[in-house]
Amino acid sequence: MWTLHQFPLCPFSRKVRILLAEKDVEFAMQLAYPWEKSDELMDLNRAGQTPVLSGERGGPLVDSTVIAEYFDETVQKSPLMGSGASARAEVRRLTIWFDQKCYAEAVNPLLLERMYKRLVLRQPPDARMLRVAGQALAQHLDYIEYLLGERRWLAGGSFSLADISAAAHLSVADYLGGLSFDGYPDAKTWYSTIKSRPSVRRLLPDRMEGLSPPQHYDKLDF
Amino acid sequence: MWTLHQFPLCPFSRKVRILLAEKDVEFAMQLAYPWEKSDELMDLNRAGQTPVLSGERGGPLVDSTVIAEYFDETVQKSPLMGSGASARAEVRRLTIWFDQKCYAEAVNPLLLERMYKRLVLRQPPDARMLRVAGQALAQHLDYIEYLLGERRWLAGGSFSLADISAAAHLSVADYLGGLSFDGYPDAKTWYSTIKSRPSVRRLLPDRMEGLSPPQHYDKLDF
Repeated sequence: MWTLHQFPLCPFSRKVRILLAEKDVEFAMQLAYPWEKSDELMDLNRAGQTPVLSGERGGPLVDSTVIAEYFDETVQKSPLMGSGASARAEVRRLTIWFDQKCYAEAVNPLLLERMYKRLVLRQPPDARMLRVAGQALAQHLDYIEYLLGERRWLAGGSFSLADISAAAHLSVADYLGGLSFDGYPDAKTWYSTIKSRPSVRRLLPDRMEGLSPPQHYDKLDF
Repeated sequence: MWTLHQFPLCPFSRKVRILLAEKDVEFAMQLAYPWEKSDELMDLNRAGQTPVLSGERGGPLVDSTVIAEYFDETVQKSPLMGSGASARAEVRRLTIWFDQKCYAEAVNPLLLERMYKRLVLRQPPDARMLRVAGQALAQHLDYIEYLLGERRWLAGGSFSLADISAAAHLSVADYLGGLSFDGYPDAKTWYSTIKSRPSVRRLLPDRMEGLSPPQHYDKLDF
């Protein structure tokens, strides 16, 4: 069986947990905090990041996108990359949008200010950085609202890795108290639908030690 | 015909130029500086980044990885992603390594200090940042040397997108005077072989206006 090296607030680990559940791939989980740079994690992934999936034939699978492509190629159930080269290009474009742009502008600053400073550095968050991250997050919700004006799911007519990636990042922002859907009715309906999928419901009870989410976080009616 | 929106020192544009040449896909080029945020570029790519490939059926293709996957799916000549799911996972892992880690730690700081500050901000480079970028680049050469100790090409027995991506980033560092292969004999041989490929030779005569590369930059014997 595969073992996923992850921690509860890592958005890329959440992305992998959701996609493996959608594909009915069984896996065990092992806690790994990248900032602790454990020998085990560094041996599995020289980049020192989560998620890593280890344990079956061949070397460990490193990076959420690598893992997603691997299982979409090897497990037929629930295709997540779109059908046809153009559709796949759109799924990949939006997945990269959330993994790189939304993460760098909004989710990573929230993780730094609200999780890493509290749990590791023992410092208060920087209010200005929180404001900038909040503004960036609102722009990403704007974009989701725009996409859903024309499409049922983010990359087109089918649920895809782009929805999983967006939901993974937004769920981390939500845990950290940074997410409000006021003014984004289509995005709210989309997120509510995503939250009710078994693959996502399964990870909402998880807690990061020493850090609680807001009351509404794991409610389907939020 | 496709049109590639790019600028000469964009490593991700170089990656696309090399892979399109390897696959014999014809394309025109149009200059686009992301920092000018032109309406044309923003309309093609809401993220405002190069490269974008526009012009044939369907929407524009955005992001070098999206473009690479698209052409590897649609053009049989010169497969660049490896054969089999595990080999593809290794090609993708290393491509992401160079596109994200090597770019963020070494190439992007070099571009900021040696290109953007000179051509746009009209400021001198920060010597400390250059030193940090140089140290990071040396670590990436270390890693290339390590990989080539066991493999003919970076991701295994075949030339792949990982080699293209690494060469694209290193060639930009080389243009900016930041690259030395002293102490990395296998990496030097590998880079010399890459430089002699027609797909790479074709882009070495390009110059960024107002910024010249060192003498050895486009020589096969460097």
